[in-house]
Amino acid sequence: MPFDPLTLTYNSAGLIPAIAQDETSGEVLMMAWMNADAVRATLNTRRVTYWSRSRQAFWVKGETSGHVQELVDFRVDCDRDSLLVVVRQTGPACHTNRRSCFYTSVRDGKEIELMGVMD
Amino acid sequence: MPFDPLTLTYNSAGLIPAIAQDETSGEVLMMAWMNADAVRATLNTRRVTYWSRSRQAFWVKGETSGHVQELVDFRVDCDRDSLLVVVRQTGPACHTNRRSCFYTSVRDGKEIELMGVMD
Repeated sequence: MPFDPLTLTYNSAGLIPAIAQDETSGEVLMMAWMNADAVRATLNTRRVTYWSRSRQAFWVKGETSGHVQELVDFRVDCDRDSLLVVVRQTGPACHTNRRSCFYTSVRDGKEIELMGVMD
Repeated sequence: MPFDPLTLTYNSAGLIPAIAQDETSGEVLMMAWMNADAVRATLNTRRVTYWSRSRQAFWVKGETSGHVQELVDFRVDCDRDSLLVVVRQTGPACHTNRRSCFYTSVRDGKEIELMGVMD
């Protein structure tokens, strides 16, 4: 079946959540949002491209930091309302310079940090 | 630092996206939504509990199907606006009886199915 980005289900702001997972480690790196044009750009350029809700603009991941995400696989869920992008990540995925944005764990009611800042 | 579910950032409907990842395989299983009470219930019961947007009710994953998710680790992202739950999944995570909801891949402009229905 040919893929049409317009067959995805977007929220009232025209956005769909996209989870980025590291190809090699399987680690979940981050979650951000795409609109239909960002979906198209991601598939056409193989550079993962989100929609920045704060800047209201395309966000080609790593365009300024160099911490790009090369698309390895693009997956759609059963309800067509969330995406999983398997990526080859250059450098840290998180703007805090950690490997993943999910570096905080809640254990025994307390928050602990699981990973440090990358060199 | 003690964890308070009210310090998370919820959307205008009071919800936060939660990604479920399989503890053993690292596979991303699904994405659903939690409200503050679902976050509390998940942490207190160690049974992953979402908020069903269609039913507008708590959704203790697997309560009717038996395909429960036992909480292994609960993680918060850098912006505190998305969650990652590492789980011990019983049976398929997807309501289509596939291991993961992300069973469709877009390759060369076409949709293909990556996994079949579990026995």
